[in-house]
Amino acid sequence: MRVKKKDIFFQTLENMADTIVNSADYFAEQVAQFKDVEQFAKKMKEFESQCDEYTHTIIVELNKTFITPIERDDIMNLTTTLDDVMDGLEATTSRFFMYHLSEPDEYIIKFAEILRNSAYEIQKAIHLLSEKKLLAIREYTIRLNDLENQGDELLRICINELFVKVTDPIILIKKKEIYERLETTTDACEHVANMLESIIMRNS
Amino acid sequence: MRVKKKDIFFQTLENMADTIVNSADYFAEQVAQFKDVEQFAKKMKEFESQCDEYTHTIIVELNKTFITPIERDDIMNLTTTLDDVMDGLEATTSRFFMYHLSEPDEYIIKFAEILRNSAYEIQKAIHLLSEKKLLAIREYTIRLNDLENQGDELLRICINELFVKVTDPIILIKKKEIYERLETTTDACEHVANMLESIIMRNS
Amino acid sequence: MRVKKKDIFFQTLENMADTIVNSADYFAEQVAQFKDVEQFAKKMKEFESQCDEYTHTIIVELNKTFITPIERDDIMNLTTTLDDVMDGLEATTSRFFMYHLSEPDEYIIKFAEILRNSAYEIQKAIHLLSEKKLLAIREYTIRLNDLENQGDELLRICINELFVKVTDPIILIKKKEIYERLETTTDACEHVANMLESIIMRNS
Repeated sequence: MRVKKKDIFFQTLENMADTIVNSADYFAEQVAQFKDVEQFAKKMKEFESQCDEYTHTIIVELNKTFITPIERDDIMNLTTTLDDVMDGLEATTSRFFMYHLSEPDEYIIKFAEILRNSAYEIQKAIHLLSEKKLLAIREYTIRLNDLENQGDELLRICINELFVKVTDPIILIKKKEIYERLETTTDACEHVANMLESIIMRNS
Repeated sequence: MRVKKKDIFFQTLENMADTIVNSADYFAEQVAQFKDVEQFAKKMKEFESQCDEYTHTIIVELNKTFITPIERDDIMNLTTTLDDVMDGLEATTSRFFMYHLSEPDEYIIKFAEILRNSAYEIQKAIHLLSEKKLLAIREYTIRLNDLENQGDELLRICINELFVKVTDPIILIKKKEIYERLETTTDACEHVANMLESIIMRNS
Repeated sequence: MRVKKKDIFFQTLENMADTIVNSADYFAEQVAQFKDVEQFAKKMKEFESQCDEYTHTIIVELNKTFITPIERDDIMNLTTTLDDVMDGLEATTSRFFMYHLSEPDEYIIKFAEILRNSAYEIQKAIHLLSEKKLLAIREYTIRLNDLENQGDELLRICINELFVKVTDPIILIKKKEIYERLETTTDACEHVANMLESIIMRNS
């Protein structure tokens, strides 16, 4: 009996999605405690390097493969948007370290929950793509859109409060950038959903 | 007698351009007064949702249409750049609200005039595209380039003055971001012009 | 004897790379002294306009040429990434002027060195592309990746120090933005390297 080997593109996209889930889980755990930010940043950098390697694998494979399971541009764009999600998580963590943040912040914790949930939806959607269950993906893209709206609304609330409550401009600069980066990362998750929507439309 | 139905792509691009004109008009009126910023932000969000729907229409139509009046990529890129103009106007307005701005600012008023003028030039150019009067478009793309230069120069002046006159760093943070977002929106208008230029070149 | 005329695309890309080298050299000289920032900004604007003209030449030529030496998209993307490097240098310099910076800063000097080195690597790589010595390019893309890592590490160090040492929030705002823009410009140099890598892969 031969076990069919999974397509290298789908396998690598699944690996990226799994790495995003692992990093978003770890991120959510860490921001609730803020114990060792240097270690936290180091570990997130490792997740990010892992995703960079997967991106590299896909580029190399695209350049030597004639027939791809879905359009080449779709594979490349999906890879780039997944990588943007990972980059957003890592870049935010590096700011925790550079800005010497040491205490948990309720808004960061809420953003981390939105991002953790988004990561799980992305993972499910990518696995469905890999199984060619295209129409089943839409449920997850809708949830990703909804999570992005939650991120948008959360940013509005926390920036509003920041300018009402915080009087130290240096703290304000740090928090503002971190909230904005977190919201941009929820945007990146929505871009994954948009790419998937467009793949569904053209292939079903 | 049969009246020829307008092409769905050109019709939707015209609708987007008209919405941008309406929102830029409203924006220019509101920043001159700054009366009810919450209502102002809500209304701009409505304009933006309208443009999002038009974008969605174009994506759906592109995915089910074989033959398009101009290249598919051109339609998609033009849609995206128009949407960026609308997003820029909306995102700036949401900052007026989040940052509790309550007084008119002469530079914001000047930017609003540049953006209102740009919106009208975009509208004229898109209607000419729809009528296939390609060569007549160039007049408007030249004006859009000129308006973007005005925006660039205005940013230089107002950021310069901000750092000379404003000593409260929190006010500085707010105004700096708003001026920069307004200038980025004039850039988005120029991107529409660049897309149009490239469509003219390849189709005439 | 006929001298073969160099291909217009390769010639223009070489011209862009040469302009980037000249501007990065000038930039590195100027930031070490900070004498006449207005003149410095004016001269950088001239370099940038020169690159804009080269970009325009490439767009015009692409639109009237049927057969290009490498894929059209590759030429266009390479042009855009080169232009981003130039824009990054110019935009940073305009901030020196707008923010009234008047004293040399050791971190800016270090970034300028990284960017000057990156410019020379880009120039060598583009000339090799023009001579169709594709495999020899990789040496330079590896160095560009390494220089980008140096930029990344330098940003981490100087932002970290900024938030430890600087207590005046307005100085902090200025320096933070300038360091970030310089690091983004090293990213743009890496994007040139990535584009070149992808051209090598598909053409060798």
